[in-house]
Amino acid sequence: MADGMIHVFGHTNPDTDSISCAITMANLQNQIGREAQSYRLGEINKETQYALNTFEFKKPDLLSNLDNNTNVIMVDNNEFSQSVSGIENAHIQMVVDHHRLNLQTAEPVHCIAEPVGCASTIMYKLYKQDDVTITPKIAGIMLSAIISDTLMFKSPTCTEQDKITAERLAKIAGIDLYDYGYKLLEAGTDISSYSGLEIIHIDSKNFQHKDLKLTISQINSSNLEEVFKRKPEIEQAIEQRIQTENIDLFIFLATDILAANSKAIVLGNKTDIFEKAFQTKLISNTALLKGVVSRKKQILPAIIETLEQKIQL
Amino acid sequence: MADGMIHVFGHTNPDTDSISCAITMANLQNQIGREAQSYRLGEINKETQYALNTFEFKKPDLLSNLDNNTNVIMVDNNEFSQSVSGIENAHIQMVVDHHRLNLQTAEPVHCIAEPVGCASTIMYKLYKQDDVTITPKIAGIMLSAIISDTLMFKSPTCTEQDKITAERLAKIAGIDLYDYGYKLLEAGTDISSYSGLEIIHIDSKNFQHKDLKLTISQINSSNLEEVFKRKPEIEQAIEQRIQTENIDLFIFLATDILAANSKAIVLGNKTDIFEKAFQTKLISNTALLKGVVSRKKQILPAIIETLEQKIQL
Repeated sequence: MADGMIHVFGHTNPDTDSISCAITMANLQNQIGREAQSYRLGEINKETQYALNTFEFKKPDLLSNLDNNTNVIMVDNNEFSQSVSGIENAHIQMVVDHHRLNLQTAEPVHCIAEPVGCASTIMYKLYKQDDVTITPKIAGIMLSAIISDTLMFKSPTCTEQDKITAERLAKIAGIDLYDYGYKLLEAGTDISSYSGLEIIHIDSKNFQHKDLKLTISQINSSNLEEVFKRKPEIEQAIEQRIQTENIDLFIFLATDILAANSKAIVLGNKTDIFEKAFQTKLISNTALLKGVVSRKKQILPAIIETLEQKIQL
Repeated sequence: MADGMIHVFGHTNPDTDSISCAITMANLQNQIGREAQSYRLGEINKETQYALNTFEFKKPDLLSNLDNNTNVIMVDNNEFSQSVSGIENAHIQMVVDHHRLNLQTAEPVHCIAEPVGCASTIMYKLYKQDDVTITPKIAGIMLSAIISDTLMFKSPTCTEQDKITAERLAKIAGIDLYDYGYKLLEAGTDISSYSGLEIIHIDSKNFQHKDLKLTISQINSSNLEEVFKRKPEIEQAIEQRIQTENIDLFIFLATDILAANSKAIVLGNKTDIFEKAFQTKLISNTALLKGVVSRKKQILPAIIETLEQKIQL
């Protein structure tokens, strides 16, 4: 077993939950007497920066690769394809996640995965279990993650547990849940200063299932038309990513939280899989997906199911 | 999400922990108001039968395949290759395990994996968390699993938590831990009535790592010489398994708990991987592995590490 400080981090293209979990898990480890530090695997988005500013956290240091046998805790992610370079040779001490499982380890590890809306909801429970005080600052950053991941409780991934936890955390943080929540989400929807490549990079995840290399990128917006004014630029950026990363299927989703719809731009040589999965026909590479807001619960399972059917045929 | 009764089961070639966890998890689900039933994925070994007899449990029904979308809870295992036919299309509700992780799901699942010596140690915690009474019978079967998996606390996989849990369970069950424990382990070492094929089947697990199809079979014995009197018969059985199942590397371990050694018979076309992993030379297909008693903690990681090095070269 490796010695030394535990590196705690979420997924690449970190969202508010990945950053929050890294901070709160490193703090939890410190409180129970273990040396640990939080890291980020990429740039901080505007929503996360708003949360960090509000609760007065510095952004974690950037981590771009791991030395062999580094002690790590993976939070809000368990897939190596969404983790840091060198993760294959790290010593994984613990995994706390709420995504599908796609993990192969050589030795047994401590893994807590629950199908809740936000990994920070699990972090809250771990603080309770270990009897570690949740300070107003810690409560604030946990709460930000729950608001972000559940889209203010509107996502189908949201559970009663996420909601109850958020309400408790708002009390500890001493803030108005809904007032702060909408300000936080609003902070993340401003894409005016981003290039096309930056827009599709804000919250982009790569998946490998069987032979398919899939990327699903998502942004939230209260004004889908405004996003689609920049369609040519976004398409060009997607084509560029497809070329350089050999992606088979790239799905870009602009999600309107309040309307609970997503409008997709889909490119690659396997767009038929998308069309089959959602029984739709792409027009100018786009489709409106009514009631679809969750990559994890709605997009990815539909794609995987379609792939599995294809294989069985 | 699928409806209907939850099927609870451990791994194929069930050991005492797999049977115990299936029984105690199904009971836990029943106690919290969910319809669930325990199953076994193979014949009951003599040790497990001794435990079932002592605490007056009937053996669970045999399960040989699953209908699509059946609700399942996987206990003491998370690898499809060691599970029931049809598991790929089941609706996995929960996983409780203490082995390495090798699981790919389409959707998020509830997974509790801890690097403890026995999955029943985790089951004990779940009863406590859910505030469900542990009856003397349930305590007895949980305890049997811990004794079995940790080889009466002598395995390197055993943790302080396993030991403390076993002591608490012995009190609830109202039995003498060590007296019962050695009787239980002794019941499992009698191979006199088994054929060669049966001997290598008692506790045999299949692994697939990269291109390697690996089987590791293990028996406990207080008298390794007696086991090795039957070497020709065991070798013949292994060759037969290798042929019919296209196994690349078959490792059979006879483990002497008290001496903390294992004597291996190794066959297949990839025995060089074994020799490299343990820096040993097989003589007449055998090697003595001093201090090696755990498949999970000592054999499998060494093989995987060797494979990974081979790939990097």
